[in-house]
Amino acid sequence: MSKRKVYLEDIPLDEACRRFIAAMESAGMWSAFPGEDVPLDGALGRVTAKPVWAALSSPGYHASAMDGYAVRSADTLGATETAPIQLRLGEQARYVDTGDPLPVWADAVIMIEQTQPVGEKAIEIQASVAPWTSVRPMGEDMVATELVLPANHVLKPVDLGALAGCGHTAVNVRRKPRVAIIPTGTELVTAEQAQRDGLGPGDIIEYNSLVLAAQVREWGGEPTRYPIVPDDHERIKATVREAAVSHDLVLINAGSSAGSEDFTARVVEELGTLLVHGVAVRPGHPVILGTVKCEVESGERNDDSPLAPLFTLYVPVIGVPGYPVSCALTGEIFVEPLLSHWLGLPPREKPKLQAAITRKLLSPMGEDEWVRVTVGQVGDRTVAAPLSRGAGVITSLVRADGIVRIPRFSEGVDTGQNVTVELYRDPAEIGRTIVHIGSHDLCLDLLAQFLADADRRLTSANAGSLGGLVALRRGEAHLAGSHLLDPATGEYNISYVKQYLPGVPIVVVTFVHREQGLIVAPGNPKGIKGLADLARPDVRYVNRQRGAGTRLLLDYRLSQLGITPEQVKGYQREEYTHLAVAVAVQSGAAECGLGIAAAARALKLDFIPLEQERYDLVIPRTYYGSDLLRPLLDLIRGQAFRRAVSELPGYDATHMGDLVAEL
Amino acid sequence: MSKRKVYLEDIPLDEACRRFIAAMESAGMWSAFPGEDVPLDGALGRVTAKPVWAALSSPGYHASAMDGYAVRSADTLGATETAPIQLRLGEQARYVDTGDPLPVWADAVIMIEQTQPVGEKAIEIQASVAPWTSVRPMGEDMVATELVLPANHVLKPVDLGALAGCGHTAVNVRRKPRVAIIPTGTELVTAEQAQRDGLGPGDIIEYNSLVLAAQVREWGGEPTRYPIVPDDHERIKATVREAAVSHDLVLINAGSSAGSEDFTARVVEELGTLLVHGVAVRPGHPVILGTVKCEVESGERNDDSPLAPLFTLYVPVIGVPGYPVSCALTGEIFVEPLLSHWLGLPPREKPKLQAAITRKLLSPMGEDEWVRVTVGQVGDRTVAAPLSRGAGVITSLVRADGIVRIPRFSEGVDTGQNVTVELYRDPAEIGRTIVHIGSHDLCLDLLAQFLADADRRLTSANAGSLGGLVALRRGEAHLAGSHLLDPATGEYNISYVKQYLPGVPIVVVTFVHREQGLIVAPGNPKGIKGLADLARPDVRYVNRQRGAGTRLLLDYRLSQLGITPEQVKGYQREEYTHLAVAVAVQSGAAECGLGIAAAARALKLDFIPLEQERYDLVIPRTYYGSDLLRPLLDLIRGQAFRRAVSELPGYDATHMGDLVAEL
Repeated sequence: MSKRKVYLEDIPLDEACRRFIAAMESAGMWSAFPGEDVPLDGALGRVTAKPVWAALSSPGYHASAMDGYAVRSADTLGATETAPIQLRLGEQARYVDTGDPLPVWADAVIMIEQTQPVGEKAIEIQASVAPWTSVRPMGEDMVATELVLPANHVLKPVDLGALAGCGHTAVNVRRKPRVAIIPTGTELVTAEQAQRDGLGPGDIIEYNSLVLAAQVREWGGEPTRYPIVPDDHERIKATVREAAVSHDLVLINAGSSAGSEDFTARVVEELGTLLVHGVAVRPGHPVILGTVKCEVESGERNDDSPLAPLFTLYVPVIGVPGYPVSCALTGEIFVEPLLSHWLGLPPREKPKLQAAITRKLLSPMGEDEWVRVTVGQVGDRTVAAPLSRGAGVITSLVRADGIVRIPRFSEGVDTGQNVTVELYRDPAEIGRTIVHIGSHDLCLDLLAQFLADADRRLTSANAGSLGGLVALRRGEAHLAGSHLLDPATGEYNISYVKQYLPGVPIVVVTFVHREQGLIVAPGNPKGIKGLADLARPDVRYVNRQRGAGTRLLLDYRLSQLGITPEQVKGYQREEYTHLAVAVAVQSGAAECGLGIAAAARALKLDFIPLEQERYDLVIPRTYYGSDLLRPLLDLIRGQAFRRAVSELPGYDATHMGDLVAEL
Repeated sequence: MSKRKVYLEDIPLDEACRRFIAAMESAGMWSAFPGEDVPLDGALGRVTAKPVWAALSSPGYHASAMDGYAVRSADTLGATETAPIQLRLGEQARYVDTGDPLPVWADAVIMIEQTQPVGEKAIEIQASVAPWTSVRPMGEDMVATELVLPANHVLKPVDLGALAGCGHTAVNVRRKPRVAIIPTGTELVTAEQAQRDGLGPGDIIEYNSLVLAAQVREWGGEPTRYPIVPDDHERIKATVREAAVSHDLVLINAGSSAGSEDFTARVVEELGTLLVHGVAVRPGHPVILGTVKCEVESGERNDDSPLAPLFTLYVPVIGVPGYPVSCALTGEIFVEPLLSHWLGLPPREKPKLQAAITRKLLSPMGEDEWVRVTVGQVGDRTVAAPLSRGAGVITSLVRADGIVRIPRFSEGVDTGQNVTVELYRDPAEIGRTIVHIGSHDLCLDLLAQFLADADRRLTSANAGSLGGLVALRRGEAHLAGSHLLDPATGEYNISYVKQYLPGVPIVVVTFVHREQGLIVAPGNPKGIKGLADLARPDVRYVNRQRGAGTRLLLDYRLSQLGITPEQVKGYQREEYTHLAVAVAVQSGAAECGLGIAAAARALKLDFIPLEQERYDLVIPRTYYGSDLLRPLLDLIRGQAFRRAVSELPGYDATHMGDLVAEL
């Protein structure tokens, strides 16, 4: 394990929370917020601060439940088909519409269909009615003084109706917690600045405040996003003090540069109490918890302040780490439970499910780790595939179906081990998810897009062609994209499927043909012509990972040329996608890499075509015929998707959907 | 089955939807809405209208992942503890903070803790580093041109971060469907009018539009609530036409009076096409589906209108029934799927669970019925208890944990039969639910309130004392409130528990003592003195249901007095709660009823005290010791709740929590 900066503590999560709560308790900040009256029209989703009792009964009178005649049930006794009874209009029967009040003398309603007019002054009935037939008695729905809604209840649409129906026009709901979000860091620029002026070297687009603000809003709070404050102790301190006066919680978001959390800790120490500086969670370790103490003049804070002209305010403050995944998870772990508590709600619980993890995970002892995973239902197994664990990879949260928490006294989990996944999605969505593991291709992104219109979700883990076949064998995926060239036969995929999936009924279908070649900088400054140039000492190559079809192709062609891996500079540098290879070339980290034309053109790089390869979909027969995959097969055999693929440079969709083999 | 008005159709739900969709398809109204660009800050919860591709790579350069020295990995080869290597600052090693760009010549970072300064011009290292160690390569998170989000995706907080991180400041999301909500009915008044002026005879508070508007908002639409339109054909027609021009969907809500749906149907027929008039669903039968055709001038409708100066617009219209439960369910059944479709989303699915129904339900053949139920986990059984099936009882939806759908080819379900419940709540809440079935008491409302603060939910079904014991025997409840007087012993509850729950380990705990007496009108105009007066011909009584403790008490005392039920006028009229009995007296439907003091005082009625009775909680021992019930037992043995009960008139909490018997 790496050494850690000495000033960061390693406080276990539960102990950190205990300290934070104790400090808020002693400052009177750890109780549900008081209520405010809001009109019913604006109360959806708010939380009741008090129980609500019915002010009126509903219905407020005995009401007819039918269109018909209000009668005295006693007058109808004995009426039959053979001995009908006539009732005089006015005194014995009065016409009522549904909802009309009953005359005081009536105690039942006869449906109009069960009456016959007798002239203009009477009706005839052929059956008696029991008392209270077809009547909605006063208070059937709500009786004045009855409990209609408890406190700490999140208001749904029908609740608003019930409140209005029993005589209320407003409801007392908990004040929304006001949360200040202060992004700090000299290297930060706004997305708007970046779009207008472009990004300078070292510039980082600030979006943590956007994520935190959206989280706060989603959790029932009212966020204020402050402008970016550069790394200047006095300015940060002044902003925090100003924010504390008018908010219930202050979030200081460190930039990702190192010094930033120092600023936060010092500011909190100077303005109040630094309670925790470093929590044993990953990602999110450099979290800061504290309280800020302000002397405030009455009126400066526009809420339920004490009436004293000058009073002391304690405001909780959280120093949120700068890496985007750390930041978002700090929101979930620390901010959400606090807001829920203030709103009188239990902490949010995500739906949970058990799944088999698809990859061994080593986790450091002593830290709780939150691992992002995708989840799919493959046959009768639910599988969870870990995503990138990098704290800087926000897309790992975007793509995550859920989180697996590895507790701090565990060293990790083994492949296939059962884990609990806390889901970000509705469990029903998991059942609509097609799990692809295998080689990456741009057309899969496009396919995901088309599938979204067909009520399917495609999750795609890039494990290379061989990795995909192994995943199929382990029952972790519904299909694998593969472009594995057999050097013995010159044929794609079949021999590998036979070798890796013996005895498994498999269908192989062609997805696309695509051009493989060398991606080089615009203008090809090094004059690279082919793979033979990889042996040149002035050419740095960027490679694909072991098991990738492109890597096999390279190794095969290099061996034909008699070039050893040691002769290729940069052979060790492995990237997992064609686009990542292109980025390496674009950034100048390498002079060339083997990949597909589309990746080169996407980043405006040059491309030296070498050969056309076939990219197939390898599908176990049990999924090939399933409802789940039907929309996918319909798409690759239909016209719209094929046309969209043909428009991508370097792709040939002529054979898309062709059956290659049934094994 | 009752006869139905001839003009109402009985169209099965799926057929009704088919017609509606076909009409919208042919009018070009059945496709997902086009997009509009909104700033990221306001895009939370909106739905992407197009796939979003990365505009920039993130990180945009090779960034240091640590505080330390950027180096060439080749320069570090061979460094060990015994043979350290010195690197010259500037050309071989440059200090970088986390997030800083690497110099172009560097390909790795050494953490500052793993370096030793050597004077001011060099550092010493004791280990080599591999290429790309502690570096976040350009595009690690997102590569320009990569798919970041598909279309038809509901934007979460982290999604907004990812969009900003790859260079976007806005996102193209589906326009919100605009829904006009028109309440009609001469009998309707607003809640504000009712509060200001009081309710006149026959007045009904209009709140369906409040519920529909909140539903539309919750489902991603933009509602417009129109003022109440009286039952006037021309005015309704003019309002519908006006609403259609500026909205995507028009909801006409009939008042509960009979004629109203006639107005709606005629208006739709005159303005366009009446597709469906009556759907075989319950509640909700008189639903109307149609389209309205308008000739519109360009500019009159402020959206993506065609450019023609005059064009024809087809707008779907739904005639929503007036009963509040019918209205809210019509929203769920017809409006929600339409809004979801326009937003490019699949219809919302509620979480489902299997439960045993606690009561036989007869359902009419030919209609799909939606039954509201409460759900609880009692031991290892999940049980669903049906709530009121009245279409006018909005509190049945407020209290519902879910809905059971009885299909139209079924005649109902038997007691104990397994049914599928579509849940309104998080399944986790079900596990926190204490299920009470038994006698009703006002203190249970208060207890529910206190329990809400202790992370428990109390659902209470009023089945009477005997009903509660039967429910315990069937494993349908955690506890039963009971006040059953044994005429042989003068003792409460024990003998009934032994009789109804033989062999079941039971704990009986006192809840409250309370005064039973006769509830009479203010001033006691009939001069009622005691139960002997019930035999008077000028006294109408209102009774409690069979099995209620109060009913047993009445029957016992009447037999002592030698009065037969036939002598008591109104003996057949059964109410299920004390408050309902009080309402009957207040409304003048009866002169008196046996009940508790609290109910009388709540409605400002007079009360003739007769005797004090003991109300116990009967709890199977397996739940008595459970975590689930612990907060309840803590409450009745603590001070705060006891004090609150003592303040209620007619209650004595002295013995609250006392152990009566362990059986």
